[in-house]
Formats: sequence, structure tokens, C-alpha cells
Amino acid sequence: MPKASGDHVNPILAVGSVAFDSIKTPFGEASRVVGGSATYFAIAASFFTDVRIVAVVGEDFGANVEKVFGGRRVDVSGLETIPGETFRWKGEYGFDLNSRETIYTHLNVFEQFKPKIPAAHTSSPVVFLGNIHPTLQKEVLDQVQKPRLVAADTMNYWIDRTPEELTQVLKRVDVLLINDSEARELAKEANLVKAARKVQAMGPQTLVIKRGEHGVLMTRPGGGFFAAPAMPLEDVFDPTGAGDTFAGGFLGYLASCEATDDAALARAIIYGSTLASFAVEDFSVDRLLRLTKEEVHTRFTEFKKLTHFDIV
Amino acid sequence: MPKASGDHVNPILAVGSVAFDSIKTPFGEASRVVGGSATYFAIAASFFTDVRIVAVVGEDFGANVEKVFGGRRVDVSGLETIPGETFRWKGEYGFDLNSRETIYTHLNVFEQFKPKIPAAHTSSPVVFLGNIHPTLQKEVLDQVQKPRLVAADTMNYWIDRTPEELTQVLKRVDVLLINDSEARELAKEANLVKAARKVQAMGPQTLVIKRGEHGVLMTRPGGGFFAAPAMPLEDVFDPTGAGDTFAGGFLGYLASCEATDDAALARAIIYGSTLASFAVEDFSVDRLLRLTKEEVHTRFTEFKKLTHFDIV
Repeated sequence: MPKASGDHVNPILAVGSVAFDSIKTPFGEASRVVGGSATYFAIAASFFTDVRIVAVVGEDFGANVEKVFGGRRVDVSGLETIPGETFRWKGEYGFDLNSRETIYTHLNVFEQFKPKIPAAHTSSPVVFLGNIHPTLQKEVLDQVQKPRLVAADTMNYWIDRTPEELTQVLKRVDVLLINDSEARELAKEANLVKAARKVQAMGPQTLVIKRGEHGVLMTRPGGGFFAAPAMPLEDVFDPTGAGDTFAGGFLGYLASCEATDDAALARAIIYGSTLASFAVEDFSVDRLLRLTKEEVHTRFTEFKKLTHFDIV
Repeated sequence: MPKASGDHVNPILAVGSVAFDSIKTPFGEASRVVGGSATYFAIAASFFTDVRIVAVVGEDFGANVEKVFGGRRVDVSGLETIPGETFRWKGEYGFDLNSRETIYTHLNVFEQFKPKIPAAHTSSPVVFLGNIHPTLQKEVLDQVQKPRLVAADTMNYWIDRTPEELTQVLKRVDVLLINDSEARELAKEANLVKAARKVQAMGPQTLVIKRGEHGVLMTRPGGGFFAAPAMPLEDVFDPTGAGDTFAGGFLGYLASCEATDDAALARAIIYGSTLASFAVEDFSVDRLLRLTKEEVHTRFTEFKKLTHFDIV
């Protein structure tokens, strides 16, 4: 584990959703459990650095703030509580967990969400824009002063419906995290290598392509790619939040480094994969809440055994 | 590249199809070009060791034997030519090359194929059973004397139609190469880790799970897994034969080693992935026919850049 205390703390400002999820998988059900992109992201990133959440919840969220963020390196002063109900989402996964159907999405208090960055956080050196409307992502960038590193997530929904707004945001993003079908769709190009080059030309020099159970592919600043498989797991209970947890481990580690060279980016991918591999082992954020730094370290080294080979 | 000459030559006996393929991809068409599992396998494996083909062609195959195998470490004394037409297959690939439709399969002379192992080849130390009827695979094993290593390929067609015969063959196989959906089907288990354990219990201690553009996952004799991504390629013209080419690079390298420990198996996966990454760059075996050992070496080292990271 990197040394994450002392002079090298680069706090991350993270905007996204904090939600209640209801989830059905072939292995069980969970009803009205804590979810949301900012939630998974912040818990994962807080293993490496300080995280400042910008999000909104309803009055029904109550003691969950303390339950999931308490005792962690998470600053919740940007987490607004307003009258009404918290964002709710319900999804159901298919037999092999690779397909998922949304049963409902109730935006609730999120419908009026206007990100307001606390004055003390506007100079945050690292910014994470969770998968929300590109206009909200832009409003966050407009409120912060010259961050060293801006990372963003997006999805096909915004690629289809708000391409202009998304294009504007992408110009201001250093690292874009999206899944492979979305990368192809955004670039209008079936070949993933060519698609990656086209997305890079839109702004983000580092593109992290998430492939679910098949791992991650990242463009490298110096050309070429870095690829990591997902850790093969015997018990995958709930894939919800895996992508946001990956983003948290990835960006948390990068923020804790001084450099963002090829070697640091590669390690960041493995830390992201490590955190994500734990997230799916239980419903909601349950596994992350009982995760230890020692477990993170052990699984990080297991990734080396999984992928390294010698040249003779 | 390993030293593949001298005392350490372990020839591979390879049974499979030699065929004419007609292929349509989004990038072009090729009509009546050389294909077949034994063809791709043998060319790839011959970069590392001697290969002895057991297969059948019709009289129409003619000068193609010399064209594809001539000047290589491929012994064609077990390649029968009989009256009639060569096996013909026609397939068409979808937009992203991940889906493929078979337009026709004409077995032709392959319908009467009875593998006959030349007497001089019955003591081959390494045997590759290409993706053919399990009863034919068994007939090959019945004709050879205690091979050091037996590898086999199969597919959903045989898992569905000849499960009994396949089960009998699997008991005599050390390495099974199949794709991920087939591994799940064979084990009747959605989770790939559990599926792999079940398939190992059927016989093959080493299971190589092919995931197409997502790379390969291999069980390790000592427990755990080894995973390799596919090389990200800008120009994929024709995925036909990629799996057989992978098998050729994998088993060819293993045969050229004295050991089959974890480290050798990991390198074999990378050599297989390397050869497969070239096969798809052109139609038929065209790219493999003009491939050099230097190119193989260069791409092998590129795989290290693609996958390795440091622990700090």
C-alpha cells in the first residue's frame, strides 16, 4: 500500500449520486440498501487519500451517512440533505450477471440537484465527475480552480441524449472511464483501438475502458495500451457499483502519487481492479465497509501472480 | 524465442481438419482459401518444434500442401489424399467480428475420415486433438504410446451431441482448450471459476479458456489462474483460425520446453496469444505464412509492456 498520509495528500473532489438500491441477482435480493456512484467511489478512494463528496440525499437517508462514511477519509460537508426522498434505483441481473435490467429509476431529490462546491473544496487538486448529466459535470468544473487531474465517467444514456454537452465536458477531462460498448458508440467505430484514438482526440489523453468480467484496457500517454484482467472470483454476488469502486481505487491511488507516469497509471489500474474485485463479493457496499488495507495489499500481489510471466 | 533444435525436440502429433474456407467479414471476402484446425495449428506450432499432421484432403487440395507446409517443420506423411472434395466451410462475420454465422459446412472427404497414425509417429511425445468428433479423438489416443502431454480442443456441438464420448476422451487429456461459454456449458455452471474446477475434475488438469478479443484464462496446476489479454489490434481482418493458431503457439512452445511448470505454461499462453494476434491480421493463413521469428519475438515482448506492473 502506498503511503497516503503526510505531505502527499491530494484530496479528491467527487460528484455523483448517493442512492438507495434494490437489487435482485440469481443469488439473492437486497432491498433499499445504500448505493450510488459517489458512495462506491468515495469508500474505495478513501483507502488511499481524502475524498470530498458533492451529492444530495433526502431526509430518509438519515444515519446511513455516518454508517457508510463515518471513520473514513471522507468529508461529507458537500453532501446536502434536502426535503424529499433519496434517489432510488432497482435492477435485476441475469443468470451469468453480465446482463442487467433496470426495473425503475426514481430520481427524487436528485431531480433538483445543483452541485455546490464548498468554498474550502474549490481548490481540490483532483476531481472525479461521476456518471451524471454532462451539464452538471460542467457546473462542477466551472466551480473549481485548475485541478491537476480531472477524471470523468459517463454512459450510453448521455452519449445518445446529450452529445453536445458531453463533447464540451470531454475537452476538459484528463481521464475518461467508460465501458467498451460505450467507447465504440462514442467514437462511432467498431475497432476498439481506433475507437480509443478517436476518443483521445476529443480531449481525454487517458482512456480507461471497462470490460466487466473481462477486465480493463487503458491507453497509455506514451502510446500503446495497458491491459488487466478481472480477478477470477468464485463468488460474485452483486456487480452493482463495481465500475465506481474501480474508479475510486484507480483515482485514489493516482491522487496519492506525485507522478502520473506509465508505471503509476498501471498500478492505479490494478488498485482499481483490486477494490472492484471486493465490491462484488457482497450486496451494496457491505464488503467494502469491512475491507482492510491488508486485504487490499494481498489481492494486489495476487494480481501479479495472475498476470506476470518471465521472458527466457 | 526458445531454442527449438537439438536434443529437446518433442514432436507434436496433430489431428484435425485441413479445409477450404470461404469467409466474409466487414472488411472483405475470401473464397476457397486454405483453412482447417490442423492447418492453423501446424503452421503456428512449427515455429517452435516439429509437427506431424494427421488429416485428410480431397484431390482438389493439390499444390496447397506444398504452399502452406513446404519449408516448415511440418511432416505431412499422415496427411491422406483421397478421391473427392476437400472439407469446405463458409462463414460470415458481423460488424464487430465477435459474432459469426456458418453459411454451410460440407464435410466431403472428411465424412469418411479415420485417423491412421503412421507407425513412425505412434511414439510422438505430445499429441494435439483438434476439434473433431470425440470418437475420432479417442481413436488417435488408442493408436499412440504413452504421450507425455495430450491437449485437446472441443466445442458446444460435441458437448451437446456426444457428451458420453467426450467424457471418455477428457479422462485421457492433460490440457483442454475451449471457449468460456463452452466451459460453462460443459460444467453446467455459470461461474467461470467453479466451472473450471468442475472441468478439471473430469480429467484435464490444465484448462485454457479462450475468450476471443478478451484474451485467455488458464487454470494453474498449483491452484489459481493465469490470465492474458488479447493484443489490442488496429486491423483485425479475419478471426478464423485464431483459436487453432493460439493452440499451435501454446503447445508448440510447451513441447519445446522440458518442463511444464507454472512459468512455462504462462509463457506458452503468451506465445499462443502472440501467434493468434498475427493470424487475424489477414485472411486465411496468409499472415502466418509470411511471419518471421523476429516478429514473434518482438510481439512477445510487447505483451510484457501490455500487462506488467511494478509493486512499490
